[in-house]
Amino acid sequence: MIRVAVNGYGTIGKRVADAVAEQPDMEVAGVAKTRPNYEARAAVDRGFPLYAAVEERAPRFEEAGIDIAGMVDDLVAEADVVVDACPSGIGAENRSLYETYDTPAIYQGGEDADVADVSFNARSNFEEAQGADHVRVVSCNTTGLSRLLAPLLESYGVEKARITLVRRGGDPAQTGRGPINDILPNPVSLPSHHGPDVNTIFPDLDIDTLGLKVPATLMHMHSVNVTLADAPTAEAVTALLADESRMFLATPDLGVDGTAAAKELALDAGRPRGDLWENCVWSESITVEDDDLYLFQAIHQESDVVPENVDAIRAILGEADASSSMATTDEALGMGL
Amino acid sequence: MIRVAVNGYGTIGKRVADAVAEQPDMEVAGVAKTRPNYEARAAVDRGFPLYAAVEERAPRFEEAGIDIAGMVDDLVAEADVVVDACPSGIGAENRSLYETYDTPAIYQGGEDADVADVSFNARSNFEEAQGADHVRVVSCNTTGLSRLLAPLLESYGVEKARITLVRRGGDPAQTGRGPINDILPNPVSLPSHHGPDVNTIFPDLDIDTLGLKVPATLMHMHSVNVTLADAPTAEAVTALLADESRMFLATPDLGVDGTAAAKELALDAGRPRGDLWENCVWSESITVEDDDLYLFQAIHQESDVVPENVDAIRAILGEADASSSMATTDEALGMGL
Amino acid sequence: MIRVAVNGYGTIGKRVADAVAEQPDMEVAGVAKTRPNYEARAAVDRGFPLYAAVEERAPRFEEAGIDIAGMVDDLVAEADVVVDACPSGIGAENRSLYETYDTPAIYQGGEDADVADVSFNARSNFEEAQGADHVRVVSCNTTGLSRLLAPLLESYGVEKARITLVRRGGDPAQTGRGPINDILPNPVSLPSHHGPDVNTIFPDLDIDTLGLKVPATLMHMHSVNVTLADAPTAEAVTALLADESRMFLATPDLGVDGTAAAKELALDAGRPRGDLWENCVWSESITVEDDDLYLFQAIHQESDVVPENVDAIRAILGEADASSSMATTDEALGMGL
Amino acid sequence: MIRVAVNGYGTIGKRVADAVAEQPDMEVAGVAKTRPNYEARAAVDRGFPLYAAVEERAPRFEEAGIDIAGMVDDLVAEADVVVDACPSGIGAENRSLYETYDTPAIYQGGEDADVADVSFNARSNFEEAQGADHVRVVSCNTTGLSRLLAPLLESYGVEKARITLVRRGGDPAQTGRGPINDILPNPVSLPSHHGPDVNTIFPDLDIDTLGLKVPATLMHMHSVNVTLADAPTAEAVTALLADESRMFLATPDLGVDGTAAAKELALDAGRPRGDLWENCVWSESITVEDDDLYLFQAIHQESDVVPENVDAIRAILGEADASSSMATTDEALGMGL
Repeated sequence: MIRVAVNGYGTIGKRVADAVAEQPDMEVAGVAKTRPNYEARAAVDRGFPLYAAVEERAPRFEEAGIDIAGMVDDLVAEADVVVDACPSGIGAENRSLYETYDTPAIYQGGEDADVADVSFNARSNFEEAQGADHVRVVSCNTTGLSRLLAPLLESYGVEKARITLVRRGGDPAQTGRGPINDILPNPVSLPSHHGPDVNTIFPDLDIDTLGLKVPATLMHMHSVNVTLADAPTAEAVTALLADESRMFLATPDLGVDGTAAAKELALDAGRPRGDLWENCVWSESITVEDDDLYLFQAIHQESDVVPENVDAIRAILGEADASSSMATTDEALGMGL
Repeated sequence: MIRVAVNGYGTIGKRVADAVAEQPDMEVAGVAKTRPNYEARAAVDRGFPLYAAVEERAPRFEEAGIDIAGMVDDLVAEADVVVDACPSGIGAENRSLYETYDTPAIYQGGEDADVADVSFNARSNFEEAQGADHVRVVSCNTTGLSRLLAPLLESYGVEKARITLVRRGGDPAQTGRGPINDILPNPVSLPSHHGPDVNTIFPDLDIDTLGLKVPATLMHMHSVNVTLADAPTAEAVTALLADESRMFLATPDLGVDGTAAAKELALDAGRPRGDLWENCVWSESITVEDDDLYLFQAIHQESDVVPENVDAIRAILGEADASSSMATTDEALGMGL
Repeated sequence: MIRVAVNGYGTIGKRVADAVAEQPDMEVAGVAKTRPNYEARAAVDRGFPLYAAVEERAPRFEEAGIDIAGMVDDLVAEADVVVDACPSGIGAENRSLYETYDTPAIYQGGEDADVADVSFNARSNFEEAQGADHVRVVSCNTTGLSRLLAPLLESYGVEKARITLVRRGGDPAQTGRGPINDILPNPVSLPSHHGPDVNTIFPDLDIDTLGLKVPATLMHMHSVNVTLADAPTAEAVTALLADESRMFLATPDLGVDGTAAAKELALDAGRPRGDLWENCVWSESITVEDDDLYLFQAIHQESDVVPENVDAIRAILGEADASSSMATTDEALGMGL
Repeated sequence: MIRVAVNGYGTIGKRVADAVAEQPDMEVAGVAKTRPNYEARAAVDRGFPLYAAVEERAPRFEEAGIDIAGMVDDLVAEADVVVDACPSGIGAENRSLYETYDTPAIYQGGEDADVADVSFNARSNFEEAQGADHVRVVSCNTTGLSRLLAPLLESYGVEKARITLVRRGGDPAQTGRGPINDILPNPVSLPSHHGPDVNTIFPDLDIDTLGLKVPATLMHMHSVNVTLADAPTAEAVTALLADESRMFLATPDLGVDGTAAAKELALDAGRPRGDLWENCVWSESITVEDDDLYLFQAIHQESDVVPENVDAIRAILGEADASSSMATTDEALGMGL
């Protein structure tokens, strides 16, 4: 069994821990957290050993009546691999800790690409992470784009991709984040950083991205244009995407009109936390005009990287190849809607 | 086993069906629905026999590749009891159907009180529904208020209750509902209908209610003032409410700052659909000034009536008393956070 | 003086009436309205003769203490031209009324293109409306796109335009419209109707459009990609657009981060109702990558067609050419920020 | 002419400057600002001498091509009175500057009450500010409550006031503020600070307040309960409030269903920036049940304190009594809708 440490038990960390616990070849060595809020209690209820991430704040857990198993150093020392799910920028600060204990580490996409030896997307470049010590799972948006672009590149070739990312302002419980009633260029200068981030996965891809921010919390939405080298029919693209395990096609009969209905569908399906690990592509939107493919896809920012983190664990430890790891992950999680 | 029909498989109906399926003494005879959307598929996936609610639309299910077990009449005829979870006003139209087959029926709070022989809240007046043919579970807001007022009435007596209900504009996936950026008196005339609805449970209670509507989807919020006959300390009230099985106290250590965090906590706890069946009372808000009690409570409009519907089934069939039914329901659902 | 009737005194009609009243060569013959709300009172306060649009509802005005000057037929009969600003679809129903009295008519973009002899944008095809009896001012979004595309077509040629329109869910006071917390493909099938509508102005243009709807009320936002035949520098495009009278460039020093700040700037400038008649283009966003121009522009759905309606009046009556009409309109309104 | 300095030219400061400029007995000596954004340009366009509020940032204005008249010290030195409209907490830091130059100063309600000798509401305690050196205009919410409570106290006596303040999350252009989709107890502990702030105006009043925060930007909403000593009819209360110059009664015929329509009405009326200086009370909501008065009122957080600041200038300089100052202010602004 691979013993996995999760450092940072927030939006991403708690989901990764749960996903790891479901895997047949992994177990949660422990999770580290800075403060004893409701998420800390949920960790304890799940039976995850809880470690304090910040020494000075450790007493707060005891004050809240929560027993801790030690400091994050102890956890890193004894684990086979650590998944760092700390807020953006903290991962880079933690790198030396992981090096101290010679524990291979996986970072999230909020870190700069140079925090790691390789940026990772299971569908696109699993092999590049094998044997690396430091791997960065790309951000939710880059993950969603990579999953879409990989089969398009393989089957048709991509002349150019132009993507407008309409981003949620914050996650549901991030009450301090706005905007309340606005549409914001974000960033206002173009192209946005998302294109270069996709290039950490596909270095030669010609891609321009534009970002907006809107008052919604559930999912990001991508307005996608891809000029293909060898343009197929819309039906062929639909069939191609339907064949991808981490793509969910919202077909008209389902009556999914937007991100809230997509989440409701995931909740009704019994998914933990209503997570939609797949890209949600509206099948009706898949259109080919001359060489131009258009479609809409929604990306669940809280969860689409979760299976990628699980795969990255196997990649970094050299435990499996891409297809067998993805199959194991998907089976254990219950991918497919 | 009590065979339960659920007529109307939307926001409330699908939750009631799941809750019924969890009960040791009940089974889902079937569910009836008007159209074959993602919820219909989820019903099939759960193994619930699916009936067409509207004869003319029945072919749509076949067109969508969904087998139906028959028409809603067949379902009503063979069930021991029917829970009507149709949109407001349709329940009243359905009453004659239930009478035709002599099947006792439970309606939702969107119907007028006179649709039924008795309005029902498990904590407050379980006994009144015993033996009735038609019972109405009061609305989400009235349910939440009744749960709060029942122990206050019993322990301290209530001189007067004054409640401002800050209501969510629509449920998460009701994308056609607003407002987007407004605060609306709703209704503008006072007091609102909520007070009289509480009086269907507590006829002699002096209560005035005011309603507002805001751009939020997750939960309603009640700003509560109750002038007590025999005022206790805030600590005593806190202890009293903590003792109620369908009250959740959001204590400061949990870091629950609003409705989104409350929902997140329920999702983390593994609740189906992240449902918060309990009233969510902020313990820090419980305050007594002279004879006036103040507090905030949030009400999950999609789910707080679910355990009440389950109890109403036992009440209408005379199968249990209040405390044993509530205990069975709570145990089966996994009440308690 | 051109005597102008305004039929429909809501969001667009009241603005057109005010704009007409400011013109040196026009006067408001009267406005027609269906009900005596606050807008009706404002019309009276401004001194506009008020006519009842629906005969059966005429008594309501008297009940509300508002004197009316007659029925809408009287107004149409005596005016030189009528601007129809009724809700979408009503304009087409009104056409026979205007024909009865032989009064030339201007319709809004919510009507189908075939309601009129010509679709109109002052900057792009003023001359085509000269002498027509029925002219349709294209919608707010099509107006904004035409203003942008006209100079690009003239200066560089356009190979293809690809536009994602992130649309506000409703106007500020349309409290019944959603969504509250969602991002919706709207329409889900691609390309959206906006492209064909732009083709009513530029029939040969190759344009694909995609529409989304978000919980915001202030302005639409366009994420623009135009592949140019003869690509200039970003600086050249900026200079080109800065030279257009109905383009406002939001430069970095202004600190305008989104649609709310753009509206605040217009309010601070003393604009009536804070209207932003111009396209609001973020200068920092203007980028050229190879042949691809990218930029963000915001469109004030309540007002950008107002100067276009004024110009359409002169076009339909043959009173001026494009440049002199636009100059008169802009001078009278106080265009320029 | 009273020469008025305005230190802080943001949401409140720019409105106070405009209001001062309209007064027959006042002129704007100058305005001080920290950065050269669009508001700075608007100040220059209006002809207000512009001073740099922070010495180190003064060069930024020149870089942006904006001439400044000097530093804020120069402005304070030469003015008869200064209105401090800086962000909360900065006013207190500025006090020593005003003392240095012996310039009487008016602060905003974001400052603690002890920044000044007296807290001020024109309708309620104008006389107490006469001759004071430092006066604090109470916050938007406290201003709105004082205006309502003053006539109730005078006419009927108040046994107890209980108010739920449903607060907007941020102003329209404050894009960094949330929540996006939540209802937050704010503060969670009761009663909120608003009650004690009202007591700075009415020290003996028994008042409990509760605060919530919602995703809206236009106005605050108050759900008001006042237990009266000598209860009148609802009609009498309506007549009493209609007689107050800074109360606007939204009557049913106007069709104002919420805060957005109230703002739209103000925009249609030609109000600068669409400001609603008055309390907006829904006449239909005015209800008396036994001794309890209920009503809804909306408060425009950006502007209701503007006339109060103007009156505070006359009070602090001893230039008028309450009724003559208020009449002059209202006449100059164009109060009344």
